[in-house]
Amino acid sequence: MATRKECIALDAKDKLAPLREHFALPEGVVYLDGNSLGALPRAAPARIQQVVQDEWGRDLIGSWNTAGWIDMASRLGDKIAPLIGADAGEVIVADSTSINLYKVLSAAIALVKADASHRNVILSERSNFPTDLYIAESLAREHGFELKLVNTDEIEAHLDDRLAVLMLTHVNYRSGLVHDMGRLTRACHAAGGLVVWDLAHSAGAVPVDLKGSGPSEEAADFAVGCGYKYLNGGPGAPAFVWAHPWHTEFMDSLHMRQPLSGWLGHAAPFDFKPDYHPAKGVQRFACGTPAVISMAALECGLDVFWAAEAYGGMEALRRKSIALTSLFIRLVEEHCVGQGLTLFTPRDAAMRGSQVSFSRATGAYNIVQALIARRVIGDFRAPDVMRFGFMPLYTRYVDVWDAMVHLTQVLQTGEWRDARFSQRAVVT
Amino acid sequence: MATRKECIALDAKDKLAPLREHFALPEGVVYLDGNSLGALPRAAPARIQQVVQDEWGRDLIGSWNTAGWIDMASRLGDKIAPLIGADAGEVIVADSTSINLYKVLSAAIALVKADASHRNVILSERSNFPTDLYIAESLAREHGFELKLVNTDEIEAHLDDRLAVLMLTHVNYRSGLVHDMGRLTRACHAAGGLVVWDLAHSAGAVPVDLKGSGPSEEAADFAVGCGYKYLNGGPGAPAFVWAHPWHTEFMDSLHMRQPLSGWLGHAAPFDFKPDYHPAKGVQRFACGTPAVISMAALECGLDVFWAAEAYGGMEALRRKSIALTSLFIRLVEEHCVGQGLTLFTPRDAAMRGSQVSFSRATGAYNIVQALIARRVIGDFRAPDVMRFGFMPLYTRYVDVWDAMVHLTQVLQTGEWRDARFSQRAVVT
Repeated sequence: MATRKECIALDAKDKLAPLREHFALPEGVVYLDGNSLGALPRAAPARIQQVVQDEWGRDLIGSWNTAGWIDMASRLGDKIAPLIGADAGEVIVADSTSINLYKVLSAAIALVKADASHRNVILSERSNFPTDLYIAESLAREHGFELKLVNTDEIEAHLDDRLAVLMLTHVNYRSGLVHDMGRLTRACHAAGGLVVWDLAHSAGAVPVDLKGSGPSEEAADFAVGCGYKYLNGGPGAPAFVWAHPWHTEFMDSLHMRQPLSGWLGHAAPFDFKPDYHPAKGVQRFACGTPAVISMAALECGLDVFWAAEAYGGMEALRRKSIALTSLFIRLVEEHCVGQGLTLFTPRDAAMRGSQVSFSRATGAYNIVQALIARRVIGDFRAPDVMRFGFMPLYTRYVDVWDAMVHLTQVLQTGEWRDARFSQRAVVT
Repeated sequence: MATRKECIALDAKDKLAPLREHFALPEGVVYLDGNSLGALPRAAPARIQQVVQDEWGRDLIGSWNTAGWIDMASRLGDKIAPLIGADAGEVIVADSTSINLYKVLSAAIALVKADASHRNVILSERSNFPTDLYIAESLAREHGFELKLVNTDEIEAHLDDRLAVLMLTHVNYRSGLVHDMGRLTRACHAAGGLVVWDLAHSAGAVPVDLKGSGPSEEAADFAVGCGYKYLNGGPGAPAFVWAHPWHTEFMDSLHMRQPLSGWLGHAAPFDFKPDYHPAKGVQRFACGTPAVISMAALECGLDVFWAAEAYGGMEALRRKSIALTSLFIRLVEEHCVGQGLTLFTPRDAAMRGSQVSFSRATGAYNIVQALIARRVIGDFRAPDVMRFGFMPLYTRYVDVWDAMVHLTQVLQTGEWRDARFSQRAVVT
């Protein structure tokens, strides 16, 4: 059995430990919710002040050119690309994950239709993040397609000749299960479908290889992801979108648009022409004017990943992530025996993202609230899941220990039964 | 003929003059481009720091509840409502103008279809802002509708029994022409159509009365608008969306969604249910997670309008706006006789927004660049328009005089012919 001292020793010899200095974390808080809202990069406040006071306040409209605001969407995209196995020029930052999903799912449907195919099924998991399902449901309805929702272990059996698009989230938001992206992409392509990956819980948390190192059948078709979780871009940070060049090149040749065809996705927005001609490549997935201040915050988050390259990059982060989540599982299972906790996250580290979830038949919401009162921040996901996210850029081994201690005490004392922990917040 | 001294005297007796103190404007700049990017509200840097350092950095995920992030979309909407003749609870802030237009235009088309109507024309002006036309073109294509573009004086002749939706921008981005919202709304309704207004160049610049004080036929159906122009919300600030309650109530009764049906437009987003049930009212037009930092900046811009209430609000601002634009037209026409300038903005103040545009057969782009080099900031709109925006919250009469002097000198000296003023910037 480990001790707190041993955890402190692990931190002392952790080569990634200096990266925590890139974040401004509050004293005395064990923050295990970076999978919902990443921590504040230390560089962000000054950078945001510069954007606000100098670029906006002093240089005003000229900053679109002089401060490079107009290029931010692709500049930030280029910083995300290496984290997800994409190449420079293939990713842009824009809008929200939901909206980007609407764009790429629409494009995928249009490509299927351009093949004069009768395929009309969008396949996903019942347990996928709801907003993805809501967007897919909307498009299925619009196009007369069927949105087929299945259990995780049924996905492959449904990759058939009716499949148009397989839409999956790489790491499940509740269970933390990681899909085998290469295998599912290959299977989807073998069945004749296109695949759209949502990387909300994987970009910055687990290595992602969208284009695949093996045969071309392993390269995915489209992807979207979130800026404010593991990328540490701040509350409501803009999201990102990737499209494989073979699709954008084909879309170029057909002058094909995506439906949210706003002016910044136009080939020449400042010509102010009344008819739409899509920009080439992934730029066609831009729409309106980008939220510059929020993007500046996101850029600070992305720059920490560049700093992390010197420490071994995503591979090293993944190794630490597995060490943290494995330790948490082991400690909780040792110390909370008989407290009704069931591991909801895959026990096999290779199948687990950077989070650990436990379910409990009763009290899961209250236990999370009691932990928050003790300044151990995780979150609750309906109906019965306690979720703890581990961000190897800033989570320490001693945080794992301390979180376990508080969880153990909350359960042993029964303090979670206190009425004040039952009061439901708007956001859980 | 006025003098600079007389302009200074006008500023001295201007009751709205103290409102300029709410903005941090650079010394020595005559800023006439607030219709493209509004100036920095003086309260914004500190407020943004608070959001970044305290709410994000210190309080982290808890700020969704404790700092009211989850309510920002409607709280900011309620601050916009009185500026556009809407009531509290009818407006939300979200996404970009282009994306919000997609939502409401989709809703309008769905409502027309729900009537089992064969109407299938979206009518707009050829001179409308391009992004509006691009979005309408996309939806027309998707729904098998026709996007009919006509000249401004032909609009009413095309309000016929094929009309589904009339989509207009209240104040034209190039000419500054103000449509008679009440008359066109009534004419559109008489013809059996729905009307969608884009308020990008009117919210905060001219009084807007979406619901109309007269008969109910004068109340508009849907509206969208921009946060970063006259509302001074900062670069790429989120936009807003309004829907008349009679439509959202009808949509409620039919459980009707808009196509960008993301989780924050769901009736119970934190229940994480796989099937979509739209939230009631205008909240159904929300989609993904809001860009909190950018919204905090916008709120500072909106709060200046609350301060302006004590000075007579939008009516007083409109009177000053007309005085500023009228003075600029008069001064330029007196001082720049024979310099090839043609007034492109309506001469009738009642038909003019808060901008003045002049066209010139040659050199318009270069003249604007030469003015910017002299720190008089207007902008160029292809192919031949010089555009000058006047924001009564911070533009002074002496700014009008100084802009005229520099324009006169640029033209008389011919300095605009210098090659460096021909170099095209990415953003014009």
